[in-house]
Amino acid sequence: METAFNLDQSIRKVKDFPKEGVLFYDITSILTNPDAFSYCIEKMVDIYKNKKIDAVAAAEARGFLFAAPFCEKLGIPLILIRKKGKLPGKVLTKTYALEYGEDSIQIHKDDIPQGGNVLLVDDLIATGGTLKAAKELLEEGGAKVDKAFGIVGLPFLNYSQVLEGMDVVTLINYDSE
Amino acid sequence: METAFNLDQSIRKVKDFPKEGVLFYDITSILTNPDAFSYCIEKMVDIYKNKKIDAVAAAEARGFLFAAPFCEKLGIPLILIRKKGKLPGKVLTKTYALEYGEDSIQIHKDDIPQGGNVLLVDDLIATGGTLKAAKELLEEGGAKVDKAFGIVGLPFLNYSQVLEGMDVVTLINYDSE
Repeated sequence: METAFNLDQSIRKVKDFPKEGVLFYDITSILTNPDAFSYCIEKMVDIYKNKKIDAVAAAEARGFLFAAPFCEKLGIPLILIRKKGKLPGKVLTKTYALEYGEDSIQIHKDDIPQGGNVLLVDDLIATGGTLKAAKELLEEGGAKVDKAFGIVGLPFLNYSQVLEGMDVVTLINYDSE
Repeated sequence: METAFNLDQSIRKVKDFPKEGVLFYDITSILTNPDAFSYCIEKMVDIYKNKKIDAVAAAEARGFLFAAPFCEKLGIPLILIRKKGKLPGKVLTKTYALEYGEDSIQIHKDDIPQGGNVLLVDDLIATGGTLKAAKELLEEGGAKVDKAFGIVGLPFLNYSQVLEGMDVVTLINYDSE
């Protein structure tokens, strides 16, 4: 059954969101379909169960949705990658460039496993900018980061260049229209 | 073993966050402790597995962390309660009062099960304001909402008054200092 599952049918495509000219790949249609959601989590477990992963770092907020069941199933600690000002403990902060302007992410310093392997998880990997900033932040904090996972990949936005040297896995990729 | 688990020890208390005079109950220390995280999800499953729940609605962003593993385990559709502007599909919007100012939440209209029972999930229930707004929104959309769950409850902030008539369950409660 698993190989016959069509994940594409469970991903809604919304034109002109969040702005004109952008085709948005919406994963909320996976969440409302328990078969699709289980398929994604089981795939993640299959891919990573035999890799040595000491912690997962998940990007706010949609990354939480896939990282949490995965971590709970495998008993792996879950670290949050949050926007500035959301985490109450001692944090490491990284500011990075966006298409227009910049953004800042934070991670709890004490959550980072010293010398441990951290897997980055997000729902969708596009430019790779946030994951690159997260990788740098985790490495500054003492972890090793050479793996990233996304349900959806948009390779035409060149994440493989930005995340060069990393092992990036996605369950489904879309080309530019 | 389960009854001996001390959840309190896995919840970090941070003084003066996000502002002076507030004691913040931080659940990220549950996420980095796989035993604590599993304990919470298993408790949720035990509490709700025999109730007739057609969907879960989870509050952004920390509510996602507990709702997602719970929904995945029980095969229940997961609806997101998000801040304005995050959901790409047709939405219902509710604006509600905060201590200072107001906030708006949105839910995908087509995700709401007509006549179905929806369980509200968040990490922490304090004033109950967001969950009340979510309940009203889901009911406007055609669902029944009489159950809410939080890992942590702060009853001294009077959520039981705001959520009057609802069956509200929390795993641990804290009194005012």
